[in-house]
Amino acid sequence: MSDEKNTSAERQIEILKRGIIDLHVEGELLERLREGRPLRIKAGFDPTRPDLHLGHTVVMSKMKQFQDLGHEIIFLVGDFTATIGDPTGRNAARPPLSRAELEEGVRTYAEQAFKILDPERTKIMFNNEWLGKLTFADVVRIAGKHTLARMMERDDFTNRWRSGVGISLHELLYPLAQAYDSVVLKCDVELGGTDQLFNLLVGREMMKQFNIRPQIVMTTPLLEGIDAKVDERGCIDGAKMSKSLDNAIAVNEPPADMFGKLMSIPDPVMWRYYDLLSQRSSEEIARLKQGHPRDAKIALAAEIVERFHSREVAGQEVERWNHQFQKREVPVDLAEFEVTIPGPQDSLPLAVALRAAGLVKTVSEARRLIEQGGVSLDGERVTDMDLRLSHGARRTVRVGKRRWAVLVVQ
Amino acid sequence: MSDEKNTSAERQIEILKRGIIDLHVEGELLERLREGRPLRIKAGFDPTRPDLHLGHTVVMSKMKQFQDLGHEIIFLVGDFTATIGDPTGRNAARPPLSRAELEEGVRTYAEQAFKILDPERTKIMFNNEWLGKLTFADVVRIAGKHTLARMMERDDFTNRWRSGVGISLHELLYPLAQAYDSVVLKCDVELGGTDQLFNLLVGREMMKQFNIRPQIVMTTPLLEGIDAKVDERGCIDGAKMSKSLDNAIAVNEPPADMFGKLMSIPDPVMWRYYDLLSQRSSEEIARLKQGHPRDAKIALAAEIVERFHSREVAGQEVERWNHQFQKREVPVDLAEFEVTIPGPQDSLPLAVALRAAGLVKTVSEARRLIEQGGVSLDGERVTDMDLRLSHGARRTVRVGKRRWAVLVVQ
Repeated sequence: MSDEKNTSAERQIEILKRGIIDLHVEGELLERLREGRPLRIKAGFDPTRPDLHLGHTVVMSKMKQFQDLGHEIIFLVGDFTATIGDPTGRNAARPPLSRAELEEGVRTYAEQAFKILDPERTKIMFNNEWLGKLTFADVVRIAGKHTLARMMERDDFTNRWRSGVGISLHELLYPLAQAYDSVVLKCDVELGGTDQLFNLLVGREMMKQFNIRPQIVMTTPLLEGIDAKVDERGCIDGAKMSKSLDNAIAVNEPPADMFGKLMSIPDPVMWRYYDLLSQRSSEEIARLKQGHPRDAKIALAAEIVERFHSREVAGQEVERWNHQFQKREVPVDLAEFEVTIPGPQDSLPLAVALRAAGLVKTVSEARRLIEQGGVSLDGERVTDMDLRLSHGARRTVRVGKRRWAVLVVQ
Repeated sequence: MSDEKNTSAERQIEILKRGIIDLHVEGELLERLREGRPLRIKAGFDPTRPDLHLGHTVVMSKMKQFQDLGHEIIFLVGDFTATIGDPTGRNAARPPLSRAELEEGVRTYAEQAFKILDPERTKIMFNNEWLGKLTFADVVRIAGKHTLARMMERDDFTNRWRSGVGISLHELLYPLAQAYDSVVLKCDVELGGTDQLFNLLVGREMMKQFNIRPQIVMTTPLLEGIDAKVDERGCIDGAKMSKSLDNAIAVNEPPADMFGKLMSIPDPVMWRYYDLLSQRSSEEIARLKQGHPRDAKIALAAEIVERFHSREVAGQEVERWNHQFQKREVPVDLAEFEVTIPGPQDSLPLAVALRAAGLVKTVSEARRLIEQGGVSLDGERVTDMDLRLSHGARRTVRVGKRRWAVLVVQ
């Protein structure tokens, strides 16, 4: 996490390639790193996106690595499209943002982003500054350099075209807008999620057409959610982290939840999170792999809680965890039980959940155990017999001395 | 040709429908004509087009009919695209026009157009006035109301897409630009060639989206060239008039050439020209059909020469024709002979051409006939034995007293 301005190009490539999906093209990146100057790194963000979760921070973690290596980071806010809105009116629930709403969105976004990035060395820019000045004539000139066939190579366009789902003409213009950002910024590298690969490559092409040295394109994978499973070959099998799939860790989540959720993920998923989220060096991670997975998991949870809360809070969480769980030898990979809330309610009593999960035989047994202080949630003894678990809750539960499990309420 | 402001809507429809290919939709046109106000008629023109020929004037003849019926004519100059040029650079020979070049082009164009239209009652407008002010954001909003699928319904797009010929993205924007003109002008009717049907209908749709009463769309057919043949069923079979096909009559062509060329077309083609170019009423044309075709052809040739030159010149041409041809009973449909210039030259002697066409047996015979005053071209006796015919020439030739033919030099 130290400033590594004098790191060799080869060493930098090694650091920067970690977790990357696409790199167009490595030779060019090496060449530019060898020039010894700070490279200009661009990553675009949509200010209309609601609260960030860890999945959104994968690109930022990569930006942070560039930053720590002495490069120049441009945090590009896509306010041009945000203030236009979706002209098809398909998404009536999301009207164009007003300038004030936009600024509030950006403020929140930046506040969360600066828990990872160094604000002193991050340039926030707004693409409406130049896209808002383009005329129809400019757009015709830019569009004239691209063919429809090339644009239709984008997977989602191809699929929608084949399946007869309408593609609105303005959607063909957005990749050009994003590409034109790169022309204006003359960036060396553009970073984005792997779902952005096509758009980033349009930027690369457009720069060539404007006789500008074309940007290097790097994409990061989509982070799996905390419900990801591991198959018999040890491969991770899970959907990407998403608020709507209820498998996300929000960056503004309370420290105990954040810590607890991270402690609940299977080991291979933990190493994946290390690759994509941790600022630790590959050497440090290699050393952690030689130790006990539980220690590595605690170190990861602590690093993430420290990032989004504070070092102090992270220390408290580690201590609490050690106190409540580790000394009793909590199994690291806990069995997970899903319980469903019946009918129209949005919560259910803990005693009912324990029975539903099969951790006790009857609801009465559960209530008796709670009364005797024999049940704890996330390391805290339960004293309220009528405690209810809300929809979406994910709690580590101990029943008696030895029965541990993760309860997921749906 | 008189001002028919008080003509009934039904009678107007009858006049306006003559020669029309598409009319979307007749009921609406009737309804608006019944409102008794001057309708706003739009037709767009490309100021970069070189010299006009009669084919270009078909739309103008229809405009003139509207004008004579008391409607408002907008002669819309497409200067927006003309000053952008073709961004693909495919047409390197035609760079974007400078403002001065454009104005010169418009001046020439208008000069030619006003031989048909009444300048006092024609509004010349330039679409760069509003299209030049549109921003990228406006374009996104406009484009968002149209789907790619709809745009690809245009025949030439479909064909090019299927055959793998590149469609540049800016080409998808041009129909939107043209349609937006209609939104701005709030026109009642848009006129154009039949190849413009799709674009005119996009205008109609876009007006609906902008909650403007949608324009009526009328298209005129493409005029066949003077080389059009007539098949055994009496149907016209010929390519459209085009300078590059060497079958055109330019509006600034010398009167004798114009008159001669018009006298050389077959009768069915003449009636076609009447429908599309003449300002005579359908009743007058019906009357002409009852007379001798030769008289009708002379009347057409005279009308066109009068339009682009003067009444006086037209009278002279008729007189000359009568003097040279009619009294000798020129056959109305002359046989046509094509002769090819050999090798790298760009002209060939008349004597050689007569021999090549088989009108004489030897070149010597041709020369002797010329010497004796027995050969005439377009009604004028040839006195120069070394007279040469240029590439592209189309001359009516008489050899001796009775042998008439049209010579086409290639």
